[in-house]
Amino acid sequence: MKTIGIADTTFARINMGAIAIDELKKRGTGFRIERVTVPGVKDLPAACKRLFIESECDIVLALGMPGAQEVDKLCAHEASTGLIQVQLMVDRHVIESFVHEDEAKDEKELAKLAESRTREHALNAYLLLFKPEELTRLAGTGQRQGFKDVGPMR
Amino acid sequence: MKTIGIADTTFARINMGAIAIDELKKRGTGFRIERVTVPGVKDLPAACKRLFIESECDIVLALGMPGAQEVDKLCAHEASTGLIQVQLMVDRHVIESFVHEDEAKDEKELAKLAESRTREHALNAYLLLFKPEELTRLAGTGQRQGFKDVGPMR
Amino acid sequence: MKTIGIADTTFARINMGAIAIDELKKRGTGFRIERVTVPGVKDLPAACKRLFIESECDIVLALGMPGAQEVDKLCAHEASTGLIQVQLMVDRHVIESFVHEDEAKDEKELAKLAESRTREHALNAYLLLFKPEELTRLAGTGQRQGFKDVGPMR
Amino acid sequence: MKTIGIADTTFARINMGAIAIDELKKRGTGFRIERVTVPGVKDLPAACKRLFIESECDIVLALGMPGAQEVDKLCAHEASTGLIQVQLMVDRHVIESFVHEDEAKDEKELAKLAESRTREHALNAYLLLFKPEELTRLAGTGQRQGFKDVGPMR
Amino acid sequence: MKTIGIADTTFARINMGAIAIDELKKRGTGFRIERVTVPGVKDLPAACKRLFIESECDIVLALGMPGAQEVDKLCAHEASTGLIQVQLMVDRHVIESFVHEDEAKDEKELAKLAESRTREHALNAYLLLFKPEELTRLAGTGQRQGFKDVGPMR
Repeated sequence: MKTIGIADTTFARINMGAIAIDELKKRGTGFRIERVTVPGVKDLPAACKRLFIESECDIVLALGMPGAQEVDKLCAHEASTGLIQVQLMVDRHVIESFVHEDEAKDEKELAKLAESRTREHALNAYLLLFKPEELTRLAGTGQRQGFKDVGPMR
Repeated sequence: MKTIGIADTTFARINMGAIAIDELKKRGTGFRIERVTVPGVKDLPAACKRLFIESECDIVLALGMPGAQEVDKLCAHEASTGLIQVQLMVDRHVIESFVHEDEAKDEKELAKLAESRTREHALNAYLLLFKPEELTRLAGTGQRQGFKDVGPMR
Repeated sequence: MKTIGIADTTFARINMGAIAIDELKKRGTGFRIERVTVPGVKDLPAACKRLFIESECDIVLALGMPGAQEVDKLCAHEASTGLIQVQLMVDRHVIESFVHEDEAKDEKELAKLAESRTREHALNAYLLLFKPEELTRLAGTGQRQGFKDVGPMR
Repeated sequence: MKTIGIADTTFARINMGAIAIDELKKRGTGFRIERVTVPGVKDLPAACKRLFIESECDIVLALGMPGAQEVDKLCAHEASTGLIQVQLMVDRHVIESFVHEDEAKDEKELAKLAESRTREHALNAYLLLFKPEELTRLAGTGQRQGFKDVGPMR
Repeated sequence: MKTIGIADTTFARINMGAIAIDELKKRGTGFRIERVTVPGVKDLPAACKRLFIESECDIVLALGMPGAQEVDKLCAHEASTGLIQVQLMVDRHVIESFVHEDEAKDEKELAKLAESRTREHALNAYLLLFKPEELTRLAGTGQRQGFKDVGPMR
């Protein structure tokens, strides 16, 4: 049985962890889910590392919603750098799904974006773990998560 | 018995370590506190690492008050990057509570912000260590430390 | 028999992995190819590390097409930083071939650039692995990948 | 007997190493000093690591004077990042004393700043090693090195 | 017998490796040289690590000529960060000699700068390895590589 880890935050303004769990359960079986919640995105690297080490996860979804200010952008950068380090320490993937508060024009659109991106990245994690050849089939096809795919160049 | 580490600075303009200790003592028992003070935020990563290795802390609070200039912002970034590295080396959380000098319009407001953020992050550290399920209950609820929570998106 | 790894993305808008494979096969024999595809450039470091550790690659090509926005530039920076870390962990080269969406004036030119840069970097990987002395012969000659070489200074 | 390491540069425009040694000798006894000089600030991380590993230093002072241009600021950032990494590898402190060429309005003021900051950081290193409780007594008091202390907030 | 490693690039527009070898041979004997050439500056960290691990170098010169565009500056930053990491992994120095394309007003001046900086840094590497006390004698004297030394502050 594989284990999929989910780490999200109390800072986010939508329950990204619950959305990811819902999506994963739709996708298939053969895995169990371990979930933790931390205060903010800068706490995600340690949370993910612990999910790999203590809960023996095979892949982890790191979910966050950085704010729109300069300092928030820097926090997201620090978090992302740490998430890459985690992956190199354990030789497993962390799929990061961050939604920046300034990516949408209002709360309604932002909530919709956060949900769809999280669902699409949950699928990416599922495919990486169980059907990696499906991703190779999509190589170079301009996939976007949360927005409409742009497709391959003509 | 768990051990909570606290690292703060002589650069800060308010005794953040003392505030955190006061808050932790209000929250419960079952832990002892180890505190060190270093000159500035860039000294915090080593201080935290030593708290984990030498004092066997289970979690550490890193408290600092970066200045308002460009060079101070960069120091804070370097410190934060180091704090994330520490966590990945020991598989334990460091809860960072930084208050930037330009986050408030005057000293009085800044002092109030520094105190409330430090208290809220001390609580976060306490919950991560003793009641992690309380944080999962708050997932996606737009928690902010020091400012009013923004709440979930509607 | 040497092994050349190839990691590309579903985010890219052209099948960079297929182009690299085509070029490598033209260059010679004596190697086998291992290919994986991940969602975006930030997933490339872990993919490359796994190609070294699990597939015992001797060199890896990391292929990606970062978007034109500020956030995309930052993603590419985080990915590049991670790719360098991978190399230092395994003492082997990762040849990065990234094509930024704003490097060309239209899709047609961008597709051409992506193809030619990928082919030239596939050759670089081949030379590093089998004929490193050929690269020393080209030291200081102003080689560019995807664009016309600028040549040595006069 | 403790060992205090000192690493400075030929790039600096004042003999920071000599100033630090002078200050340390005034502060007390019970330690010996190991000093190395490297070309620039980017060479300081390796110099400090070597002081810990080969000379078994208990703490190291890293002294540098980055230039005023954008490229110099980036060098200082890279150096600082490396200095933090060193500390996390050896679980000991490196006290960084950098003076930027644009921190003063003329050479005379800059020389004075470089001297006073170096002396104050030499004292910080001494206290961290021999009297850490003195630093805790100064927690949150707005200490500045080279400039007048700003004091606690009122 | 000591070993000095030299890593340069095909991207550079002058044969920096050949210049460094010429300078080192003028400086003395008692060492052998190992040289490798890689495509660009981002390939230098892995090249240097390999020179230490596989060729048992005692010090390495990393020579590169980053372009003038924003993306080139970022590449140089990523390379420099990696070069510092290499040094901390092997406890030996990498002397970086990078010449940015926008540091001179025309090709002739740039070529001259690249040559003189490379020669001066080759000397720095030689001194670090064989006569480190010569560098301490120059501490705080405002040495510059490629440009006129600015000297100590008066």
